[in-house]
Amino acid sequence: MAALARSVLVTGSNRGIGLELVRQLAASPWPPQHIFATCRHPEGPRGKVSVGAGSSPLCFFALADIVNLPSIRGAVRAVGSHLKDQGLNLLINNAGISSHATLRSLDSQEMLSVFATNVVGPLQVAKEFLPLLEKAAKDAGKEGLSCSRAAVINVSTKLGSIGLCLGVLEAPMYPYRASKAAQNMVTRCMAAELQDKGILCTAIHPGWVKTNMGTQKAPLTVERSVRGILAVLASLSQDTSGAFLDWEGNSLPW
Amino acid sequence: MAALARSVLVTGSNRGIGLELVRQLAASPWPPQHIFATCRHPEGPRGKVSVGAGSSPLCFFALADIVNLPSIRGAVRAVGSHLKDQGLNLLINNAGISSHATLRSLDSQEMLSVFATNVVGPLQVAKEFLPLLEKAAKDAGKEGLSCSRAAVINVSTKLGSIGLCLGVLEAPMYPYRASKAAQNMVTRCMAAELQDKGILCTAIHPGWVKTNMGTQKAPLTVERSVRGILAVLASLSQDTSGAFLDWEGNSLPW
Repeated sequence: MAALARSVLVTGSNRGIGLELVRQLAASPWPPQHIFATCRHPEGPRGKVSVGAGSSPLCFFALADIVNLPSIRGAVRAVGSHLKDQGLNLLINNAGISSHATLRSLDSQEMLSVFATNVVGPLQVAKEFLPLLEKAAKDAGKEGLSCSRAAVINVSTKLGSIGLCLGVLEAPMYPYRASKAAQNMVTRCMAAELQDKGILCTAIHPGWVKTNMGTQKAPLTVERSVRGILAVLASLSQDTSGAFLDWEGNSLPW
Repeated sequence: MAALARSVLVTGSNRGIGLELVRQLAASPWPPQHIFATCRHPEGPRGKVSVGAGSSPLCFFALADIVNLPSIRGAVRAVGSHLKDQGLNLLINNAGISSHATLRSLDSQEMLSVFATNVVGPLQVAKEFLPLLEKAAKDAGKEGLSCSRAAVINVSTKLGSIGLCLGVLEAPMYPYRASKAAQNMVTRCMAAELQDKGILCTAIHPGWVKTNMGTQKAPLTVERSVRGILAVLASLSQDTSGAFLDWEGNSLPW
């Protein structure tokens, strides 16, 4: 069995799902050759947790504040020089924030800040890493779409499904839901635009997971969610580029 | 036959679909008692066009820059004092902007500005007018949901359908598409939250219309689109609150 991808970059990898993705990738019997774990403050207290936890020599930690363009460009340079003449196979846009607001309590600035982090940020990261992804797609020496060739995975949420519109009254979360619906649109647009370049793009709902964001009320452990996500990523192809799948591979309505 | 609603407010009413909505409402054999036509610059050259065109004594023009909270609140006060002890029946969130950008050309600030106008703006307008809408719903003396009782209509677009994801390569428009998907989510959330208060909320795709935004290549005249929209609005009920319909009443996928 081959590695999921030769090189993987995970944003927001200092805790929760991002940290567990890095952990399980590094601990895999067929680990990637390069794991790039990025977060806003790799030197801060949360950064230390992840450096300690993902202490595999495969892991390279880089600063990337996904709403700050110079910071993203710095990460692209650092990753590029680490990869030398190789491209980047798999970009996992995991960084994101949650936000609770009812119609009555919502605040414009807060809502725009959620859009900046959850929609514009991942899109900017994809845009800036595009040359490295295109290089990987070109150098892969194979046809078709897969995470081992070149892919952008956007971590989404079932709460971003407009069709399901789950539990609006119990969890109003207007800014979070709207931002994730917008991110899903971005996933579809990118899937359409990038397929001819050999780059896959898929949205994944990780389940409701016991993390800081998901709270301890969540039914799913982060270990189980990430095991599922990695299995789904390994199965992705042309047929599931532009899809919205959960951590068990089930298709979700937009 | 009764009027569509006793009072109607249309944002972005100085041109295009907004202006035609005001025109047709004022020219109807059963016109609303009050039509509130708002736009950013009622005194500017575009404002004059609409004042001239909608010169019916029913029309009251008010300034409302939908991304500026004090401006919205000023409009709420002006409309409230005009309505005296009545509520507002129908709010049509029509104001919005278009934006073209490919993955390569997109700019973060431009994208956030599109979100501010197309998502946060209409949501703020609905939030601030909510007391007047609730008053209309309460005073209506009837059950069920309808535009004649109390409703928020969000003017959306088929380009905001994630499921269809039409013509991405020909018209990339990442910011516009993502903002309209986000606005559709907001429509669904509001429909769920406000139905118990007697307020309907529906997203309408006006078709591809010959306006400044739609360009002259569009197949549909603004007169025909608006005739269709007004017929659809008159038909809305509990069953179509939270729906995404086109100007002919056809349901669109999210």
